[in-house]
Amino acid sequence: MTAVASIDARTGKAGEEVGSETSPADIAQITAGAAAAAPWLAAQGRSGRARLLNALADALEAGRPEIVETADRETALGTARLNGELTRTCFQLRFMGEVAQEGSYLAASIEHAGPTGMGPRPDLRLINIPIGPVAVFGASNFPLAFSVPGGDTASALAAGCPVIVKGHTSHARTSVLVADIFRTTLTELDAPEGVFALVFGRDAGTALVRDPRVAAVGFTGSVAGGRALFDAASSRPEPIPFYGELGSVNPLVVTAAAAAARAEEIGAGIAGSMTAGTGQFCTKPGLFLLPSSASGDRVAEGVVSALEQVPPGYLLNEGILAAFRRGSSEAAGLPAVKVLFRRQETDSSRPTVGPNIGRQVEPVLIEVSAADLAAHTEVLTEECFGPFGIVIRYGSADELNQVLAAFPPALTGTLHTSGAEDPELPEAVRALEQRSGRIVFNGYPTGVAVSWSMHHGGQYPAATTAATSVGAGSIQRWVRPLSFQDAPAEVLPPESRDETVPGLPRRIDGKLQIG
Amino acid sequence: MTAVASIDARTGKAGEEVGSETSPADIAQITAGAAAAAPWLAAQGRSGRARLLNALADALEAGRPEIVETADRETALGTARLNGELTRTCFQLRFMGEVAQEGSYLAASIEHAGPTGMGPRPDLRLINIPIGPVAVFGASNFPLAFSVPGGDTASALAAGCPVIVKGHTSHARTSVLVADIFRTTLTELDAPEGVFALVFGRDAGTALVRDPRVAAVGFTGSVAGGRALFDAASSRPEPIPFYGELGSVNPLVVTAAAAAARAEEIGAGIAGSMTAGTGQFCTKPGLFLLPSSASGDRVAEGVVSALEQVPPGYLLNEGILAAFRRGSSEAAGLPAVKVLFRRQETDSSRPTVGPNIGRQVEPVLIEVSAADLAAHTEVLTEECFGPFGIVIRYGSADELNQVLAAFPPALTGTLHTSGAEDPELPEAVRALEQRSGRIVFNGYPTGVAVSWSMHHGGQYPAATTAATSVGAGSIQRWVRPLSFQDAPAEVLPPESRDETVPGLPRRIDGKLQIG
Repeated sequence: MTAVASIDARTGKAGEEVGSETSPADIAQITAGAAAAAPWLAAQGRSGRARLLNALADALEAGRPEIVETADRETALGTARLNGELTRTCFQLRFMGEVAQEGSYLAASIEHAGPTGMGPRPDLRLINIPIGPVAVFGASNFPLAFSVPGGDTASALAAGCPVIVKGHTSHARTSVLVADIFRTTLTELDAPEGVFALVFGRDAGTALVRDPRVAAVGFTGSVAGGRALFDAASSRPEPIPFYGELGSVNPLVVTAAAAAARAEEIGAGIAGSMTAGTGQFCTKPGLFLLPSSASGDRVAEGVVSALEQVPPGYLLNEGILAAFRRGSSEAAGLPAVKVLFRRQETDSSRPTVGPNIGRQVEPVLIEVSAADLAAHTEVLTEECFGPFGIVIRYGSADELNQVLAAFPPALTGTLHTSGAEDPELPEAVRALEQRSGRIVFNGYPTGVAVSWSMHHGGQYPAATTAATSVGAGSIQRWVRPLSFQDAPAEVLPPESRDETVPGLPRRIDGKLQIG
Repeated sequence: MTAVASIDARTGKAGEEVGSETSPADIAQITAGAAAAAPWLAAQGRSGRARLLNALADALEAGRPEIVETADRETALGTARLNGELTRTCFQLRFMGEVAQEGSYLAASIEHAGPTGMGPRPDLRLINIPIGPVAVFGASNFPLAFSVPGGDTASALAAGCPVIVKGHTSHARTSVLVADIFRTTLTELDAPEGVFALVFGRDAGTALVRDPRVAAVGFTGSVAGGRALFDAASSRPEPIPFYGELGSVNPLVVTAAAAAARAEEIGAGIAGSMTAGTGQFCTKPGLFLLPSSASGDRVAEGVVSALEQVPPGYLLNEGILAAFRRGSSEAAGLPAVKVLFRRQETDSSRPTVGPNIGRQVEPVLIEVSAADLAAHTEVLTEECFGPFGIVIRYGSADELNQVLAAFPPALTGTLHTSGAEDPELPEAVRALEQRSGRIVFNGYPTGVAVSWSMHHGGQYPAATTAATSVGAGSIQRWVRPLSFQDAPAEVLPPESRDETVPGLPRRIDGKLQIG
């Protein structure tokens, strides 16, 4: 069996073995265990699952120093960021418990028998039930918040679905550590073993997606990897939903009025957002649409001068490093392209941090004209993970629309305007609305709140479905509706009985009520 | 171009040409028109779209005599059923307008900026927006309620999505007639032409599913046809959701206590439900699990004696006729199978109705043991459209579970019990829950209410997603969420602004409120 080793992100060296790739036979056993554990998890009820999620968050908090240290060694994301990510992860676990307890996601609806305009209707009661075991594919760039203890895991457990995580080899030790913490906590809560499992290996991941007991998949990662698994999920004899967040070149539009008002501020903001986490956010803005004007020039200059202050950063793994080097060089090497910022590797002024400069990278910013974009869309519109960005200047709403339409839909679209009176505002919003899951005004898209109003998704390839992978709505991915017709009260879930359930929103005979 | 002709279902003869198959070039033009019309439909708002749906229902009512007569000629479903189906269709159009007006489907959520446990949160406002042009594939067995003016069309228009229907050739004239009524009505409402279109032809259908401007597909039909189109939708460069309702062998379980209490009544009910509409309902019960007991025998005898009173019926088209003959003969011919009811074609007592006896069929009911099922699952578990059913006797909960698990998941599962004290009740409900979208108690699944609590769907192959194709939830298929972050009020949809929207349920800072 192939060993799985922990990797030091700063040196690129593989260290201790933390496990081995999971065999297909083990996958079958693990999914059978998950299926067997599903009734226990459902029987905990919404409050029981909220308590379970709180206990998992408590246990992660208790392990904070070791988790953050381990994750930093494996990802080089820095302890400040990783402490923040752990806080976010714990918050998310608790939040999904609140979402379960609040209960709107059940969409509980009770209709008593009676006449209708199309004839008599029987007693009908609708409720969402857990979909079954969920396979989760952790991301490289968030070793906690989008990995083993991340949003997919939290929302699936909240919905009542056992979880099997395919751990990312970029942070294998962190994955094993967190999984151990989860398993210990779940055992203390008398949960059956099948409620949560961690597996490793590409073949194991494919086997998971094809396993008849797996009811749905959550995925965060690349377009290539995600599409292969989406295809596997869709081509099963019984297709299952594949909730993938695959890739996104996030546009950021600056109107002429905004550029005139605050060019330098926007320039610095762009540079900060593009290079945060060494550009390894799915919400990294990667396409900057600046007006063809003198103030547009000043924004571009502002980005460049801010980039000059940005130290080099580590990329997460060899694959991302190679893709960044290839992608940024290929784009920067196009004849039509003007390189706005690329520090020479030999630049003696470059700060030296860390022992292995070879795994560090510098930001790259290029500019291309709207006209030249058309000739090189394949190279220029592909997401380049890491601190890479493209500036394109626009002279009219039509040109803005054309450029945006040349890029695939994105998780986010950002608009810097001078406010409600900005003449470009309405049309720019319309353009971004067509191709984004979230529109950010006068800010930066990198941060993703965990809340009731967050949508983290978008049209393909931003996501493979209309669902969100962050926030309250993410729980909806793991349920399916079931109607009971003329059922005796004894077999109904508590939320479907006539008795009021305190605080639970339900629809009674067509009218939404808060219990 | 291949002509599309109206067919007389009772004679099988093709009559007048009503149009021709739509060319790929025309599909491109039609989808472009639909995309261009989307902003108009969205701009009507929820009340405007409710008015539009009411106007469409009014226009159908005004055309009732001609619609019913045309549909009866093409389907032989009878004017009583078709009058009822038209009533249902108009009710459904109006109901989806009410669902739009009620507005819960928007899932509107407003969160003002503020601190959270993971740091400050910006102002975030979530709302569901129309997904874009929707392709609808009409079914053969409901020329109105699941076809041109059916639930997919009603829910998509309610959501704000232009609709392109691929009409079913089983009722081409009805499709053209209804489409003409829709277009006339929409023109009177000043709608752009692209809001609604009707196309014909298999290649046109495939072209629709592959068209980059089509954002989602609604389909009701066979597993083979639906799976091919699902695969086409999933294998696009940019996959789109395919909401298909494909096929279902609906189980009906009778407990020992229920059989003891009312064997003859249940037997008659089974026969009626299995043969209603000549067995051409997707919710037709097709698998009857009866107890291995003397009262189980009496249920089976009750079915047979009721079937003896059922006159032959017409099947909708040559394809269904051929599939019924092949499927029922193949199953009845298995050595392990006992034929409980199959009237000889030469039976002189058989009533003769209609001019073309060759297109009429008789019910077929067979019995197979749970043990023999395993050897012939492929033949026996495939849906056989038409008046065909299988009886299987069970002696224990384990055996019941095994038989149910041998069949694919279904739209419905029906349970006849003696009530809350029935010892078989809990386990039987659990078994049916695993594999059904709706559980019917002491009734029959054939009727499908259009209401807030209806779920018409299920795991594959009952449906390709967890969504419902009937009832209020069906509107959810045609929207996608969009978050606005720190947006000026001026660009927000009215439902996302701070001002209360009378009657609209919204979540304000995490709390669901009814406006």
